[in-house]
Amino acid sequence: MKTSDLTTPALIADSKILDANIATMSSKRPGRALRPHVKAFKSTAIAKKLVEAGHETFCCATIRELEGMVKAGLGNDLLLANETLDARRIGNLLLNEKCRITIAVDSLETIAAAVSAGVKEVLIDVNVGLQRCGCSPDEAGFLSEKAKVSGLEVRGVMGYEGHLMHDPNVDRRTEKTHESMEQLIFAHENVGGDVISGGGTGTWECNQAVTELQAGSYVLMDGDYSKLDLPFQEGLLLLTTVISTSRSGYAVLDGGLKALSVDSGNPQLLGNGEVLFCSDEHTTITNGSWSVGQKVGLRPSHIDPTISKHENIYLVEEIEESLDTEVIEKLKIDLRGW
Amino acid sequence: MKTSDLTTPALIADSKILDANIATMSSKRPGRALRPHVKAFKSTAIAKKLVEAGHETFCCATIRELEGMVKAGLGNDLLLANETLDARRIGNLLLNEKCRITIAVDSLETIAAAVSAGVKEVLIDVNVGLQRCGCSPDEAGFLSEKAKVSGLEVRGVMGYEGHLMHDPNVDRRTEKTHESMEQLIFAHENVGGDVISGGGTGTWECNQAVTELQAGSYVLMDGDYSKLDLPFQEGLLLLTTVISTSRSGYAVLDGGLKALSVDSGNPQLLGNGEVLFCSDEHTTITNGSWSVGQKVGLRPSHIDPTISKHENIYLVEEIEESLDTEVIEKLKIDLRGW
Repeated sequence: MKTSDLTTPALIADSKILDANIATMSSKRPGRALRPHVKAFKSTAIAKKLVEAGHETFCCATIRELEGMVKAGLGNDLLLANETLDARRIGNLLLNEKCRITIAVDSLETIAAAVSAGVKEVLIDVNVGLQRCGCSPDEAGFLSEKAKVSGLEVRGVMGYEGHLMHDPNVDRRTEKTHESMEQLIFAHENVGGDVISGGGTGTWECNQAVTELQAGSYVLMDGDYSKLDLPFQEGLLLLTTVISTSRSGYAVLDGGLKALSVDSGNPQLLGNGEVLFCSDEHTTITNGSWSVGQKVGLRPSHIDPTISKHENIYLVEEIEESLDTEVIEKLKIDLRGW
Repeated sequence: MKTSDLTTPALIADSKILDANIATMSSKRPGRALRPHVKAFKSTAIAKKLVEAGHETFCCATIRELEGMVKAGLGNDLLLANETLDARRIGNLLLNEKCRITIAVDSLETIAAAVSAGVKEVLIDVNVGLQRCGCSPDEAGFLSEKAKVSGLEVRGVMGYEGHLMHDPNVDRRTEKTHESMEQLIFAHENVGGDVISGGGTGTWECNQAVTELQAGSYVLMDGDYSKLDLPFQEGLLLLTTVISTSRSGYAVLDGGLKALSVDSGNPQLLGNGEVLFCSDEHTTITNGSWSVGQKVGLRPSHIDPTISKHENIYLVEEIEESLDTEVIEKLKIDLRGW
């Protein structure tokens, strides 16, 4: 099958870039020094490529992701890097499957849910500056004691400096990441354990504090991360077809808001021209020349919520300018939903 | 099953509001005077409620929607209100199924695709001011002739005034819609046929030119349309769970960018407080008081790309303040994808 046979809109990925991104990260963060975050790509097929590169521990953001990873035989050491109160589903996973699942907790309620689910191991999730989950650094020791008293093993701490991920100034990003991680290390001193988990694609190099890096987006990158000085390349494209052209100089593509996320800005057009606006099922492009039936590629600004809109990513050896190339593998996006 | 048993995030809909919105529209636009647009809700279960209200003709935006509607026995008179070059899939539909499918065309290429697919009937799609599909009004007669010479029956014209849908000033919206529809009527004079199709939820009352209105969002509404003076109520909610709270006064919900679309702005929080930001799997809310485990509702700003992120909508008799009420029906979102 060639990309020209695909129903558009369709996500295609460049396998050379995918492989190179994985190799670059693995050379710096081999094996367990990386805990790849599956939320970025939501595909056990891509997770298996990371296993081939030597990684066997993974982060998940949802229980659906945990369930899918266990079902695919990738449950050796999974971290739910997120809070949950759904003890029933976690409990079912632990009862039925051979797997090791660690859960992030940041409150007495989430500790109680972990105990109720039959979870054995937890990390204390620490707020390191992002206004999201995690206890205050000075609460971490208290929660760790409560977890231990409840019979849980505390493997260590996690803290995600998501507010620093996209700082375009590398010196400031490095300095702020260092300050942020000082809070995590302070918490770790009161918690103990082998694991200090955190970081992401944007801080892959400047975060030296974590024992394992929670990066995921680097595998295919996106417009937002590509504004930074990272050695990873953009490998994902929304393949669309021009379905209409106007004498006024614009053209209309058959993929829009339902096929890519614009929360981090409009997609970037591959080749000449620019995106005018996206609507539900269309993107209008201008300042170029196109013909009806032509294939056009859009680079998403944010891959995570773009990939989760699709059933599959079609892997090609290399994305060529013609956008007509052999599909070598269909990667199922099997971890979407909740 | 109660809403408290649902895995969150989950979409819930208020059946009283759904029924009232459908009835309000049907009283003004009964039967074939409305051609409901399924792209808004992508569910044959909701389409069947519109059939019960007397509508048997529908608009689709994608071939997947056409396929699903035909399979569900709702193929009496479907309009693909969009351009396509995928003659193979349209052809398969027409070969295998008892259905009537009309296709919008706006170029020689889309006419050729319709002929190649074995399509019998088309509408000439006319650009009435939105920078998207549609030929110029002065090209419509020429294309109509070309279609007829190619053996197609031309049922009439369509034109979507999407650029006017959200104008908050009703007088200006009415005046601009009138001007826009003059172009469609001019095109119709050169094309002929019984059908003048167009309009949407925002122009449901001010568009008097069309013989059939292409509205869909009105059935459940959203934050963006609710800024207008329309008699339809918001009936869709993203049900989430508070998974973390902070001493700094914010709380974190377990649904974010992958569960609702922010292209038209952040969702609105039901009850006190406000949304601070949405991230991939979370929404951070502030200026209120919440406890871990509490259910919280978010009203999406744009329903179309929100609904397409979900497998189901859970219908309840009435959304109560407690957010804990009996689920009366699971509406499968069976028309998503392409």
